[in-house]
Amino acid sequence: MRLSQFHLHTTKETPGDAELTSHRLMLRAGMIRKLASGLYIWSPLGLRVLRKVERIVREEMERAGAIEFQVPTIQPKDLWEATGRWEKFGPQLLKIKDRKEQVFCYSPTAEEAAADFARQELNSYKQLPVNFFQIQTKFRDEIRPRFGVMRAREFLMKDAYSFHLDDACLVREYENMKAAYARVFTRLGLDFRMVQADSGAIGGDASQEFHVIADSGEDALVFSTGSDYAANMEAAVAAAPGPRPAASEALRKIDTPTQKTCEAVAALLGLGLERTVKSIAIMTEAGFVLALVRGDHDVNEIKLGKVQGLKGYRMAGEAEIATHLGSEPGFLGPLNPAKPIRIVADRDVAAMADFVIGANEAGFHIAGVNWGRDLPEPEVADIRNAKEGDRAADGGELRVARGIEVGHVFQLGRQYAQALNATVLDENGKAAVMAMGCYGIGISRIVAAAIEQNHDDAGIIWPDAMAPWQVVVCVINPKQDDAVASAAAELLAELQAAGLDAALDDRGLRPGSMFADMELIGVPHRVVVSERGLAAGTFEYRARSASEAESLDRDALMAKLTK
Amino acid sequence: MRLSQFHLHTTKETPGDAELTSHRLMLRAGMIRKLASGLYIWSPLGLRVLRKVERIVREEMERAGAIEFQVPTIQPKDLWEATGRWEKFGPQLLKIKDRKEQVFCYSPTAEEAAADFARQELNSYKQLPVNFFQIQTKFRDEIRPRFGVMRAREFLMKDAYSFHLDDACLVREYENMKAAYARVFTRLGLDFRMVQADSGAIGGDASQEFHVIADSGEDALVFSTGSDYAANMEAAVAAAPGPRPAASEALRKIDTPTQKTCEAVAALLGLGLERTVKSIAIMTEAGFVLALVRGDHDVNEIKLGKVQGLKGYRMAGEAEIATHLGSEPGFLGPLNPAKPIRIVADRDVAAMADFVIGANEAGFHIAGVNWGRDLPEPEVADIRNAKEGDRAADGGELRVARGIEVGHVFQLGRQYAQALNATVLDENGKAAVMAMGCYGIGISRIVAAAIEQNHDDAGIIWPDAMAPWQVVVCVINPKQDDAVASAAAELLAELQAAGLDAALDDRGLRPGSMFADMELIGVPHRVVVSERGLAAGTFEYRARSASEAESLDRDALMAKLTK
Repeated sequence: MRLSQFHLHTTKETPGDAELTSHRLMLRAGMIRKLASGLYIWSPLGLRVLRKVERIVREEMERAGAIEFQVPTIQPKDLWEATGRWEKFGPQLLKIKDRKEQVFCYSPTAEEAAADFARQELNSYKQLPVNFFQIQTKFRDEIRPRFGVMRAREFLMKDAYSFHLDDACLVREYENMKAAYARVFTRLGLDFRMVQADSGAIGGDASQEFHVIADSGEDALVFSTGSDYAANMEAAVAAAPGPRPAASEALRKIDTPTQKTCEAVAALLGLGLERTVKSIAIMTEAGFVLALVRGDHDVNEIKLGKVQGLKGYRMAGEAEIATHLGSEPGFLGPLNPAKPIRIVADRDVAAMADFVIGANEAGFHIAGVNWGRDLPEPEVADIRNAKEGDRAADGGELRVARGIEVGHVFQLGRQYAQALNATVLDENGKAAVMAMGCYGIGISRIVAAAIEQNHDDAGIIWPDAMAPWQVVVCVINPKQDDAVASAAAELLAELQAAGLDAALDDRGLRPGSMFADMELIGVPHRVVVSERGLAAGTFEYRARSASEAESLDRDALMAKLTK
Repeated sequence: MRLSQFHLHTTKETPGDAELTSHRLMLRAGMIRKLASGLYIWSPLGLRVLRKVERIVREEMERAGAIEFQVPTIQPKDLWEATGRWEKFGPQLLKIKDRKEQVFCYSPTAEEAAADFARQELNSYKQLPVNFFQIQTKFRDEIRPRFGVMRAREFLMKDAYSFHLDDACLVREYENMKAAYARVFTRLGLDFRMVQADSGAIGGDASQEFHVIADSGEDALVFSTGSDYAANMEAAVAAAPGPRPAASEALRKIDTPTQKTCEAVAALLGLGLERTVKSIAIMTEAGFVLALVRGDHDVNEIKLGKVQGLKGYRMAGEAEIATHLGSEPGFLGPLNPAKPIRIVADRDVAAMADFVIGANEAGFHIAGVNWGRDLPEPEVADIRNAKEGDRAADGGELRVARGIEVGHVFQLGRQYAQALNATVLDENGKAAVMAMGCYGIGISRIVAAAIEQNHDDAGIIWPDAMAPWQVVVCVINPKQDDAVASAAAELLAELQAAGLDAALDDRGLRPGSMFADMELIGVPHRVVVSERGLAAGTFEYRARSASEAESLDRDALMAKLTK
């Protein structure tokens, strides 16, 4: 490939609306152009990278035995209603009426369509297991599309759907997919982690996420130093607390006229924040509930929502709080409510003694509170976020890092197949609802995530496997010397013959501009062919990640590039 | 590839709603499954074929110097309004409101988005010419989706958009694309024709279509035996008629009480149909017009609409006809209208003498009519369809065949770039609106068209390049003999090593079912490995297009398959 025949269009300006590094760099490198909010055109340069990711994903899916198919992007409402997801997906689902007033959506994922295909195609257990995948455009009508292709509305996704007679078979394929995903991200050259996840809106029995590690990541990931335990913040669990100490303080009311937070009360009393308890007032279908977490902990809304009876809860309003607790926010606590209330205490709260709570009276808190003595033994659950430095269940310590979710695997079980009546005849000739797994990879998001992880001030630093070209031969030839031009062409041919995806920058730019472009677009390996180098029998080589260039003869250069 | 690891699912039943051979065979072969009206799931088998077509199109586009990019499928209304196509495209354009009530459409083609990309990317004539292409899902909200993927609503299309400073450059790229398209269809192994076309709704200066020849084709194509002239019926032109003969008959009124058609009048008079004239009453913005074609000719609505002043015409109603001609339909003619009218005569009508027309009086026609004597010399235009057997302009004879449109190239000129202000600075530093070309190939339609052209009672007969597998090794091994199984596996490996896309049918079906499947899905080459063959040192080979199988030893087989 000669870059004079390729459309490359870099810019120096940093676009004002691009907050994220990857978004800025993709625009500056000319990989994407905005068509409308959350809708991006992939330039030839950007598409080269996208296709490299796509190819690796396809190869690893096929290696894992999955078979490619393709469902329409436009799907009928009735199919989505059958599984209840027409409502459940909410406004992210782009709804469409055709000319005959029939209603459709633009597929954000394709469990329904895949199950529809399966019920048409699969009649017998002998056809199972089977795993169908596709690599296709998806759409989610994000309320605030941003960060370029990181959170675009239209995006490219690999989605796979497996079908099984029994759960054990589903689990085997789930493990097979996890291994395939690990191969994908390893081949892409990315620093990634697989973490336990909450199944969320897709539903199902078990799920794990794959994250590209990056400081700018939206998701907090929790790891243990003691094992390979890793989970996203929604699902991460710290070790259970030790036994509760004995009560040693008397109950006492404290004047806290302006202290409305645990931090302020702790500061006033000269106590650690971990001696205070935060009260969160929520409403459920069954009424008012007070959730308690330690002052230095954050409530985990997903975990809280999973406590029996708390599904679909919402925050209580001031009037509701006044009715049930007899107080205004800032001074709430489990003691002496205006009415009898349900109390759910985090495990760590249940293990506290001599703690501080709000008095349910404006301007006052209560210290020296103890379970069993001042309050009945509470209902206990893990309802808090894990935290950097927490003890892990495996005895290690928990660490928190940030990640960008790029893959997700689910054991869906039978809910979709049941709703759509996707059955096969089992060994006994009886109709059996199939178990399903689903497995997604955000192909276009990987491109942005890779940049978040791999960049410097000069631009992108692609891992070799994702780079638009692995190596670019830069020609410095102001005198239009034939010998220089043909040496460059020869080197290009030699690199290509060695199996490298190589290009020749014959655009005739000055060296400074040419090198700046190559650094901005992230080419991993740069070789300069110049009159001076030719005279010396050397090429100037520089790895994108290296700080210095080096002079190499042809053999040394080829050895370096093909190692 | 082992078919036991692939999802193959053929059926014997012919679905009731499938009218077209290709639709029936694609369903029976299990290449596609219907998700909803005009929306099809591509099964693994179907997708293999689709991808083969896609790959050849991509390779030839790249060989021709075009560069791949990708625009979103969802595009904002304002872009389409800027070119006037939001209205012009009509209800085929699938319109969508997002959660913020912003209006978009699902791209049926992407001239606007490509021009938007070009105006962001191209600043200088030095960046021209450039040709951007994409292979992407499109949507047209057909009023009556049918024929499977032949006329689906969601379909896969290759669309390319070229940008130029001057018209000569556009013409060069247009020719370059025509040559690339010819290579595509040649490589696909299809019998195709390039024909002149009307530019239609896309607009522009020149356009040609590529058709796959098939008896079931929707389009009539006109060829000359005298040169490589070919055009679709809308655009085809016959040779101009010879000089008008001298008048030899007197004008006379004829009693035609029940004869309301040219055919009936000609039969009554014992004249050839080519001696009669058909009168077509139409309304334009400027009023009533009578168009005349010979009784044995059909009016060409596209040509008629291109006559000065007739753009957007409609058929006149009975009341309008009565007002202007003083008669009822069936007896219309250019002589003695009730009011002065505009008359447009086809070239062949203008060259007639002693002809028959309606009398503008119920129950009567007039014979012996002559231009110049009985009627003023008419306004003349080519407004009729060419016809099998017509003399061609090149001296040959015109023939009519049927085709399926699978490609279309347009010289768009500057209308889109002008509307979207897509300019570059020219050599003098002045802003110049770019000239555009656009070039489409219906990838998914090619699959159906190829089947229309290549099938028999047993199923599909793929050209090698499009086949899901070029060759399938069928194992007959009821005794589960290891020697047979390993001979088959060895042969598979050998075929693959020779560069053939080969599969092994190890599903364990009985020979009859296995062969029927291979014939139905159209595998071009079938090789049988059996105990008996092994003993004889031969394989049974049969080409899909051959009537008999033959026994070949390994060398002869390999020679045949790799020739």
